[in-house]
Amino acid sequence: MPEGINVPTTRLPSAGFSITIRVSVTADASAIGRLTTCVGEAGAVVTALDVVDSDHLRVTVDITCDTADSAHADHVVKALEVLPGVEVHKVSDRTFLLHLGGKIEVQSKVALRNRDELSRAYTPGVARVCLAIAENPGDARRLTIKRNTVAVVTDGTAVLGLGNIGPAASLPVMEGKAALFKRFGGVDAWPVVLDTQDTDEIVRIVKAIAPAYGGINLEDIAAPRCFEIEERLRRELDIPVFHDDQHGTAICVLAALTNALRVVGKQLTDVRVVVSGAGAAGTAIMKLLLRQGVGDIIAYDRKGALHSGMTDLNPSWQWLAEHTNSGGYSGDLAGAIRGADVFIGVSAPNLLTGDDIAGMATNAIVFALANPDPEVDPREARRHAAVVATGRSDQPNQINNVLAFPGVFRGMLDAHAEEFTDDMALAAARAIADVVGEERINPSVIVPSVFDPRVSPAVAAAVRDAARPRHTG
Amino acid sequence: MPEGINVPTTRLPSAGFSITIRVSVTADASAIGRLTTCVGEAGAVVTALDVVDSDHLRVTVDITCDTADSAHADHVVKALEVLPGVEVHKVSDRTFLLHLGGKIEVQSKVALRNRDELSRAYTPGVARVCLAIAENPGDARRLTIKRNTVAVVTDGTAVLGLGNIGPAASLPVMEGKAALFKRFGGVDAWPVVLDTQDTDEIVRIVKAIAPAYGGINLEDIAAPRCFEIEERLRRELDIPVFHDDQHGTAICVLAALTNALRVVGKQLTDVRVVVSGAGAAGTAIMKLLLRQGVGDIIAYDRKGALHSGMTDLNPSWQWLAEHTNSGGYSGDLAGAIRGADVFIGVSAPNLLTGDDIAGMATNAIVFALANPDPEVDPREARRHAAVVATGRSDQPNQINNVLAFPGVFRGMLDAHAEEFTDDMALAAARAIADVVGEERINPSVIVPSVFDPRVSPAVAAAVRDAARPRHTG
Repeated sequence: MPEGINVPTTRLPSAGFSITIRVSVTADASAIGRLTTCVGEAGAVVTALDVVDSDHLRVTVDITCDTADSAHADHVVKALEVLPGVEVHKVSDRTFLLHLGGKIEVQSKVALRNRDELSRAYTPGVARVCLAIAENPGDARRLTIKRNTVAVVTDGTAVLGLGNIGPAASLPVMEGKAALFKRFGGVDAWPVVLDTQDTDEIVRIVKAIAPAYGGINLEDIAAPRCFEIEERLRRELDIPVFHDDQHGTAICVLAALTNALRVVGKQLTDVRVVVSGAGAAGTAIMKLLLRQGVGDIIAYDRKGALHSGMTDLNPSWQWLAEHTNSGGYSGDLAGAIRGADVFIGVSAPNLLTGDDIAGMATNAIVFALANPDPEVDPREARRHAAVVATGRSDQPNQINNVLAFPGVFRGMLDAHAEEFTDDMALAAARAIADVVGEERINPSVIVPSVFDPRVSPAVAAAVRDAARPRHTG
Repeated sequence: MPEGINVPTTRLPSAGFSITIRVSVTADASAIGRLTTCVGEAGAVVTALDVVDSDHLRVTVDITCDTADSAHADHVVKALEVLPGVEVHKVSDRTFLLHLGGKIEVQSKVALRNRDELSRAYTPGVARVCLAIAENPGDARRLTIKRNTVAVVTDGTAVLGLGNIGPAASLPVMEGKAALFKRFGGVDAWPVVLDTQDTDEIVRIVKAIAPAYGGINLEDIAAPRCFEIEERLRRELDIPVFHDDQHGTAICVLAALTNALRVVGKQLTDVRVVVSGAGAAGTAIMKLLLRQGVGDIIAYDRKGALHSGMTDLNPSWQWLAEHTNSGGYSGDLAGAIRGADVFIGVSAPNLLTGDDIAGMATNAIVFALANPDPEVDPREARRHAAVVATGRSDQPNQINNVLAFPGVFRGMLDAHAEEFTDDMALAAARAIADVVGEERINPSVIVPSVFDPRVSPAVAAAVRDAARPRHTG
């Protein structure tokens, strides 16, 4: 971004905020140059320029550019509007254009060109397949979409960083998730967005719709309700139940931490870890770290450091208070990380400064995963810590659940797994970590790219191996 | 079928029961001829013959043939097994092969090749689309799958002719339905098979999952429960609710009857109609016929001819008793059709004989729609009636709901319809009837082929026109 230009944002331009502006301008030798210069000076990044029409007097062009956010996009358009001889015709938002009509569709896998094909896929032939399943319900995993299909279930109460926006507004996220499931895992996933926030009802509904699915992926359901929903469904269903915000995040964090510790030469069992945020993600991260042998964890949330002397905790915090912070620390977050080896943030922006990070142990590891703005400015953190990771795609070491969930479900479906287990989570984390490989590992590369084609098959294979072999019919 | 051959079935071979038999036989000039002759003499129809392997001594071939049912398929295989020099290796059932892994899949409509595409379809770009819908819920019809997606909802209580086989066993039918929705209407349909048969719970679940859908297609839910479920959902949802077994069948029957009456030169308002079967289909047929002006209908079911003198009727039968059979007829079915112009059967096989049909009015119309075996043998009926239709694909005039539901939902989705109305049903029936065209209409062609590409667009256009224009945003 050119210095000295008044850009009304502190974020960087991104393809998520890409717009196309159709403008006409007086035709002269420098016409188009004036436009791109103007857009650049307004802080946007021009990614495409298409001449739509031209005559002796005027040229019409589509300028496509990345902006930082909606306000910045308005700013760019206004900058063009005040240029002499320029007329702005229309502004299209490429993200909205891409969403028109939804992002997924249902396709038939069978041809229905003629009577014979119809009579096999539908009546009368289909009746025999129905009877076979009625006689042997296990055949549903062979002869129906249950073989390869997962429900992406939400009540819309904790969507991205947007909070409780409800089922309809959560649908674009769930569709995107379904698209990712197919792209990275070959899994058919279907959005189930529920117009209820009642725990009992959500449990009943998911149980009722379960016959069509080989797995349930819970998504963006607020804590602590998500814990009870997940626990009850795990108990009552014979298909795996996975809450991506919990387990997907925990798997990716453990994978990243495994490699970060390799970089700094420390052992998981020796390090002191502080986790900021004891919601769905934080709780699952801590449980998985404890399971993997981490001995010293302090959990931090709105009430401060959770410890066994506290009262009035919800069951999930109570559990954490009993299983972490054996020293009974009760001071502030900055104090908690003093001398700590690892900070993991899944909470809120800008809780810590560079100075706080400077007070950590030598060769500190900082995972500041709050989105879009991390717990500590990653540039500041990098001045003091040995390894820094965030959830952002414009920084090194992006910790992104896409590394885990497609492969985890691919493996569970292939194994006809009836439940998701800690062993699968540990195996998946190890598989992700190992994709990076000893020779490529360094402070800026502790996780593979989400586009690395080896990730999902490696995770799937690890999960298949970890699945109990009792149901492979 | 050759005469004098002992075939253990009375049905005709069909592609729904097509098998492929791999056999090896001693290699001589007539080897393959012996095989096909044997299969033909066993009553099957050879549709393909593929040589898989051969050497000087033996030939291995895949014989694909249509059989009548599973018992007949076994019979055909046994006939081959006893031929000298023949060895049967394996038998594959083409219908089961086609069902492996399910018949539909979820596809991404957006490319996810790189970081930019990911950031538009998923985070961070998707957040803006979510916020837009949170601010203006109507935008869900533009920016999500709701635009083009229908739930195919069943509890598995009345599946085909198989009865209450439950949700898992009903799934192949619902998947087939979804495939038909896409093939004939371009509609994305998703199976929702419910593991509950409780009316209140089904209503609650469908309401809860509704935000993702632009319409609800109820399917194979037993009467009279289906009426209450449909009625309550229509009242409480702002998207159209359609029960295909009711409304789809009623539309197709009205379309067929319209053309049948054109053939015999009678008026809808003048004819006497007897309907056998007052379940979901029969009730909807009668309501639509009454709506269209038929004055004289007798409804027949397990209790006999419904009339206003009866007690202890369920609400749906009570309504029919009050609105049909004004003469209070209470005799048997054969008596009811004596002198009647139209018989419509949606009930059970073999209730009537050719003699019964002979007693109908001149130029009688017989729709014997019970599947797979009609209320009266259509060959017998054709000797006495002017127009005969069945639900079978191997007889002329197949009345098949595929003519209606894809176009009806295409039209409703395009119109952003909030409810399904009688006007839409009447318009759809007219559109189907009109596709046949005056010049092509005759006693054997009263409905178009399900593969006629004009049907679905014509139905969609008619339904769009009939939709109230208040929501076309």
